[in-house]
Amino acid sequence: MESGGDGDIPENANEHCPGPQSESAGKSDACEGCPNQQICATAPKGPDSDLIPIAERMATVKHKILVLSGKGGVGKSTFSAQLSFALAAMDYQVGLLDIDICGPSIPKMLGLEGQEIHQSNLGWSPVYVESNLGVMSIGFMLPNPDDAVIWRGPRKNGLIKQFLKDVYWGELDFLVVDAPPGTSDEHISIVQCLQATGIDGAIIVTTPQQVSLIDVRKEVSFCKKVGIKVLGVVENMSGLCQQLADVKFLKPSETGKHTDVTDWALQYIRDQAPELLNMMAYSEVFDSSGGGALKMCHEMGVPFLGKVPLDPQLCKAAEEGRSCFEDQTCQVSASALKSIVENLIPKRTAENGA
Amino acid sequence: MESGGDGDIPENANEHCPGPQSESAGKSDACEGCPNQQICATAPKGPDSDLIPIAERMATVKHKILVLSGKGGVGKSTFSAQLSFALAAMDYQVGLLDIDICGPSIPKMLGLEGQEIHQSNLGWSPVYVESNLGVMSIGFMLPNPDDAVIWRGPRKNGLIKQFLKDVYWGELDFLVVDAPPGTSDEHISIVQCLQATGIDGAIIVTTPQQVSLIDVRKEVSFCKKVGIKVLGVVENMSGLCQQLADVKFLKPSETGKHTDVTDWALQYIRDQAPELLNMMAYSEVFDSSGGGALKMCHEMGVPFLGKVPLDPQLCKAAEEGRSCFEDQTCQVSASALKSIVENLIPKRTAENGA
Repeated sequence: MESGGDGDIPENANEHCPGPQSESAGKSDACEGCPNQQICATAPKGPDSDLIPIAERMATVKHKILVLSGKGGVGKSTFSAQLSFALAAMDYQVGLLDIDICGPSIPKMLGLEGQEIHQSNLGWSPVYVESNLGVMSIGFMLPNPDDAVIWRGPRKNGLIKQFLKDVYWGELDFLVVDAPPGTSDEHISIVQCLQATGIDGAIIVTTPQQVSLIDVRKEVSFCKKVGIKVLGVVENMSGLCQQLADVKFLKPSETGKHTDVTDWALQYIRDQAPELLNMMAYSEVFDSSGGGALKMCHEMGVPFLGKVPLDPQLCKAAEEGRSCFEDQTCQVSASALKSIVENLIPKRTAENGA
Repeated sequence: MESGGDGDIPENANEHCPGPQSESAGKSDACEGCPNQQICATAPKGPDSDLIPIAERMATVKHKILVLSGKGGVGKSTFSAQLSFALAAMDYQVGLLDIDICGPSIPKMLGLEGQEIHQSNLGWSPVYVESNLGVMSIGFMLPNPDDAVIWRGPRKNGLIKQFLKDVYWGELDFLVVDAPPGTSDEHISIVQCLQATGIDGAIIVTTPQQVSLIDVRKEVSFCKKVGIKVLGVVENMSGLCQQLADVKFLKPSETGKHTDVTDWALQYIRDQAPELLNMMAYSEVFDSSGGGALKMCHEMGVPFLGKVPLDPQLCKAAEEGRSCFEDQTCQVSASALKSIVENLIPKRTAENGA
C-alpha cells in the first residue's frame, strides 16, 4: 500500500527502498527499475505542512466518524445523511463533510441543492440545514450542477485538505465524513490528514449481495491496515418491504408486454381476500443466501450494526432531502436506522463524554 | 479539466497557461500562484511513449465500447457482464476489460473467481469463460480476495496502461471496458490511452433516481468534453417486477417486529383470490416522478437505450456468474436487456462492418 504505517513503503517497491519521503527517494541505487521510481523522484518530500492547520481546525471537533463502502450505490450517502439528521435531532452539534469529489450526492440528500458556500474571515462557512447541522461538499462549488469534475488524484486530495483546513465548523460533537466508494486517493488522504487528530472509527455500509460483501472485506482490510477502528457494518437494502396496498399489479402477456391491472386487483382483493390488505409484501431483492453482512462480520471480527430494509419511502425522503425521522412515512426503515444510531451513539458518548 | 482536448489546459489554470506538457510548465511567469504549479513543474513531459505499444495491441480490436456510470451500484458491471455474454452468444469474439481497480466485480460476475492470469510470450493471457469471451481484471491478481487495493491514481493508471499494452487479446470484434463510477483517474487514463486508436463510444448506466441522474449528467458532460460519443443511456433498476407467488408476506405488529405469514397468505390467495397468482407484483423502488433517464436523455441530447427492471433473478445470475440469457429464469430482465443489445449492435455492425 502507498500510505500509512511502516514508513509509507509501497508494496511493489524494490528491496532496500529508502521510502518515498526520503531525500534519496527515486534516486538511490535501490530505486533502479522500481515501478515507483519516477513518482518518488519528483514528488514533494518531508512531513506535510498542512497537518498543523488541520489539527488546529479539528481541535474543536469531539468525534470524527467516517462512513465508507466498498461498492457504490449501497446507500452510503443516504446513511450518512440520515445519521446526521438523527444526531442533530438528538441535539448534538453536527457537521457532515462530503469528500465524494466526482459524485457529490450530499447537497441533494440534505435538501441543499443550489446553495453556495460563503467565506468569512474565519474560513469557508458550511451550509446549514439547521443551526446544529452544517454541510460541506464540492457540490456547493460547481457553477453548473451538470459539470463533470474531471480531476485526477492530486487535485481531489488538494480539495480534501482545503475542506479540513479552511472550513470553519466551530464546536462540533460529531463530524460525519461521507467518503466515495473504494480505497484510493480520497480515503488515503482523509486518513492521513485526520489520523493525528484522532478518528473515532468507520461505519461501513453494504448490501447483502456477494459482490458488495467482497468489496466490504477490502474496506475492512483497509481500516485494519491504516489503523482505523471499524465501528460496525450496516446491511442496507435488506429486502424490499412495503404495504401490499402500495404494490402495483401487472398482467403478463405472451409478447412480454405487461398491462397495469392494479385498480382491478385491489378491488378483487378487497372483495375476495381483504385480510391481505394489512400485510406487508417483502421481496428479497439481493440474494442473501450466502449469509449476508452478519456472517461476513463474524468472519472478519467486526461488529454488525443491523439491517435496513430497502424502503421506497426512504429513497423518496433521500431524493427530497428530508429526514426519515420527522414523520411516519418511512416507518419501515426509520425504526431500523434509529436503533442502529442508538446502538452506536450511547456507546460513544459513554466512552468519550460527548 | 486535466485531460484531453485543447492542449490539456486545466480549467483552474492561470491566464496564459503554457500547458502542462510544455517544457516551461510550472516554471513560466504565468504559473505563479496557479494551483497546479507544483504538479506541472514536477510531472513528466512530452508525448506518452506507451501510446505506440497500446496502438499496436489495439490494432486487432474492431470495436471498443466503454461502460460508464456516474454513481456506483447502478448495475454497471452487471450490464457489462451481460452485454459481453450477449455478444459472445451472437458469435462475436469478445474481450471484457475491468478497470475498476479498487472494486473489481467482473471476475465474480463472469463466474471466474479464483482464476489466475497466465503469461505467455505474447503477453498476459485473459481468462476465458468460453473460447470467444476473454476477461481481464485486477481481481485475478490479488493473492487474497479480501485484500484492499489501496492505490493512489498513478498506480491505478499504470496498471490500466499495462492492461492495454500487455494483454494479448488476439482478434476481437468487441472490447467492452467496465469503468469504475465517476470521472477521475481511470476514466482520464482509458480515454487518453485509447482515443488515438478509436473508441466507438460509451454506454452510460443509471437508475431512475434523481441522485443517480445528477451524476449521469456529469458523465455525459465528461464524454462531450473528451470527445467520446454517447452510444446511449440504460435505465437500470426501473422498478422491481416479480411473480406475486415469489413475494413473501409479513404481518406487522405494534412493536415493529413482523411475522412471516407467507404460507398462510399463499393458501388464502389460492382459496379466495386465485387469479392473483398469475399477476406480476411491481414496486417502484426508486422515485421516477422526475421523468427518469428518458427525460434526462432528451434534455441532454443523447440516445435512450431502454429500461431494465430490478429483477432478483438477474441479481442472482450476476452473483453466480451466469448469463441471464441461457434459460428462462431471468425472463423479465433478459428480454429488456436483449432488445437493448439488439438496438445497439445492428447499428454498429452496419456502420463499421464487424
